[in-house]
Amino acid sequence: MRTGRLEAFSDGVLAIIITIMVLELRAPHGASLGALRPVLPHLLAYLMSFVYLGIYWNNHHHMLQTCRRVTGSILWANLHLLFWLSLVPFVTSWLGETMPAAGPAALYGGVMLLAAIAYFILQQRIIADQGTDSLLKRAVGSDWKGKLSPPVYALAILAAFVTAWISVGLYVLVALIWLIPDRRIERVLAGETD
Amino acid sequence: MRTGRLEAFSDGVLAIIITIMVLELRAPHGASLGALRPVLPHLLAYLMSFVYLGIYWNNHHHMLQTCRRVTGSILWANLHLLFWLSLVPFVTSWLGETMPAAGPAALYGGVMLLAAIAYFILQQRIIADQGTDSLLKRAVGSDWKGKLSPPVYALAILAAFVTAWISVGLYVLVALIWLIPDRRIERVLAGETD
Amino acid sequence: MRTGRLEAFSDGVLAIIITIMVLELRAPHGASLGALRPVLPHLLAYLMSFVYLGIYWNNHHHMLQTCRRVTGSILWANLHLLFWLSLVPFVTSWLGETMPAAGPAALYGGVMLLAAIAYFILQQRIIADQGTDSLLKRAVGSDWKGKLSPPVYALAILAAFVTAWISVGLYVLVALIWLIPDRRIERVLAGETD
Amino acid sequence: MRTGRLEAFSDGVLAIIITIMVLELRAPHGASLGALRPVLPHLLAYLMSFVYLGIYWNNHHHMLQTCRRVTGSILWANLHLLFWLSLVPFVTSWLGETMPAAGPAALYGGVMLLAAIAYFILQQRIIADQGTDSLLKRAVGSDWKGKLSPPVYALAILAAFVTAWISVGLYVLVALIWLIPDRRIERVLAGETD
Repeated sequence: MRTGRLEAFSDGVLAIIITIMVLELRAPHGASLGALRPVLPHLLAYLMSFVYLGIYWNNHHHMLQTCRRVTGSILWANLHLLFWLSLVPFVTSWLGETMPAAGPAALYGGVMLLAAIAYFILQQRIIADQGTDSLLKRAVGSDWKGKLSPPVYALAILAAFVTAWISVGLYVLVALIWLIPDRRIERVLAGETD
Repeated sequence: MRTGRLEAFSDGVLAIIITIMVLELRAPHGASLGALRPVLPHLLAYLMSFVYLGIYWNNHHHMLQTCRRVTGSILWANLHLLFWLSLVPFVTSWLGETMPAAGPAALYGGVMLLAAIAYFILQQRIIADQGTDSLLKRAVGSDWKGKLSPPVYALAILAAFVTAWISVGLYVLVALIWLIPDRRIERVLAGETD
Repeated sequence: MRTGRLEAFSDGVLAIIITIMVLELRAPHGASLGALRPVLPHLLAYLMSFVYLGIYWNNHHHMLQTCRRVTGSILWANLHLLFWLSLVPFVTSWLGETMPAAGPAALYGGVMLLAAIAYFILQQRIIADQGTDSLLKRAVGSDWKGKLSPPVYALAILAAFVTAWISVGLYVLVALIWLIPDRRIERVLAGETD
Repeated sequence: MRTGRLEAFSDGVLAIIITIMVLELRAPHGASLGALRPVLPHLLAYLMSFVYLGIYWNNHHHMLQTCRRVTGSILWANLHLLFWLSLVPFVTSWLGETMPAAGPAALYGGVMLLAAIAYFILQQRIIADQGTDSLLKRAVGSDWKGKLSPPVYALAILAAFVTAWISVGLYVLVALIWLIPDRRIERVLAGETD
């Protein structure tokens, strides 16, 4: 199987996931701007999930560019990742509706943790298939962001039962870490390799 | 007509079907993790249908790769398959909501049976178009999975009226049969051919 | 603009329209097979609209294959067609919910009539752009199906106010006329041209 | 990253946004044509947003055609644009439900203003990346439409608190300005350049 169709299918699913989330933003019951207030947490939860899915789409795309062929295990590892990401609209909707409740904030982290693990498994399947001189392995490098995210998600899940705002803060933090380009760090690392 | 656009359209429809199913997972009414309990059967039904649609997407893709041109009958056989698959979100939602009720469990099997038949018809149309030396015919081989599934679906439909769990068990069994790569069997068959 | 992206965008919109219609098929309130009865008219309306959109996708694809470049007027004629087709889920849902009521049956025909006119306008824009030796003009030929459909839709709209079943019968008839390949007629016409 | 996948993803998201809006057009509660009356403002709001999204899709496509490579900042500027456009179904639904109320009419303009600014930022990122001899910069030209729209949106937001009809009129006006091809103006400008 060529990677083209896997990429197109994943893009389709990600585009749909990112867009149907907006269906959870129901029109407020009143007609005044004040009626928007209960929609606000939904909107913020939507924004956070939109950024997460954008990051996944971006990283997924770069990962697949190093990939020349699609084996059965890569295909199912990819569907496994899409499964957890497809639950993002559900947990986003619950988080937006109940903020700041412990359960939904913890579940959001749970889905994020499982998606991160699924992403890691997919990465390992591609590296294993590429053999000893894996292009992806070199591209991923130390992958400190990928290694940092799961423990932060785990921490956020626990923190949810203290106060949900801490865990949401941690989710925002992880998103920011992925968003901000780390050229300085890359240069440092590049310097160390010299 | 080139197969490219048929493939792209089918991919689009399958990506949408697989994703809109998650819209049936409504945010629970409470804010505690316990409020998730009524969502659990929905989630399990969603997981099962996600796997089924993943299998269909995978098989559909492999089948179309052997196909060089799209005739009118191939095009409509493909739309016929997509029609039954498009009903999966509907039967999944009903199954998740009523589990373990006889009717929805039987209807789920009915749609799966009709989708399997539609898949078989599509396969036959492509083989017929490819003529005596059909690449797809050789690729499909004995197709024991394709032959086994419809009778199991039929059995599951009947079993639903005894107890719905048996039929759901059978659906899971068929999904697992398709998921697990059958290299050993292939080797045996390959050995027999020698 | 290349036709590729117009085709891909139209395919995307058509794939989504055809698939989100199934969201109108809500899970029945009961758990028995008898609870499916109120869903039945929805299902039949869905089937009819699915076939119509399949026919449009098929014809649209063939039309665009004759088209080499996309002008501004072709682009907007195409969006105009997609607009009327995007209303199909809405009129299908209303028809399925109220069958056999006059208003929804007439509105269904109204949207079909406007979609047919939009399709005709798009066809004319492409033919006009291709100039005197238009490939599409020759491919379309006498286009008796395209000429027959609008008056039948108009008749069905009027018939709806007598009894809605007549108009639904006419919609099914038009769909069948498009579905059945007219090779015999084509041969007759081909014979006449000799 | 090639522009191909960015284009395909953006097309997918835009196709979904434009289509899921129709899900807000719920089947009327009655069965008579009169029952359509409360749906009418929804339908008109849908039509307006459909045209806006069509214009965005069209302009976005032309802009990306001048673009050879996708940098990180172009990618996120594009996702930023898609974020604001993804809110269009939400504000359309609220506008259709409450017309002529001040709040929703103002919010519609707010989202349009932010989408226009996001489009401008994306344009600037591409121009900056193309360097001094930017193809896009020349193609955009004086961009009087792009410069006119934001102040009109701002005016419409203020006007909403006088009467919502003025602001909706201004939104329609901006859409018409973008829709009508300005060949005469282009010729004048072309003449001036001679």
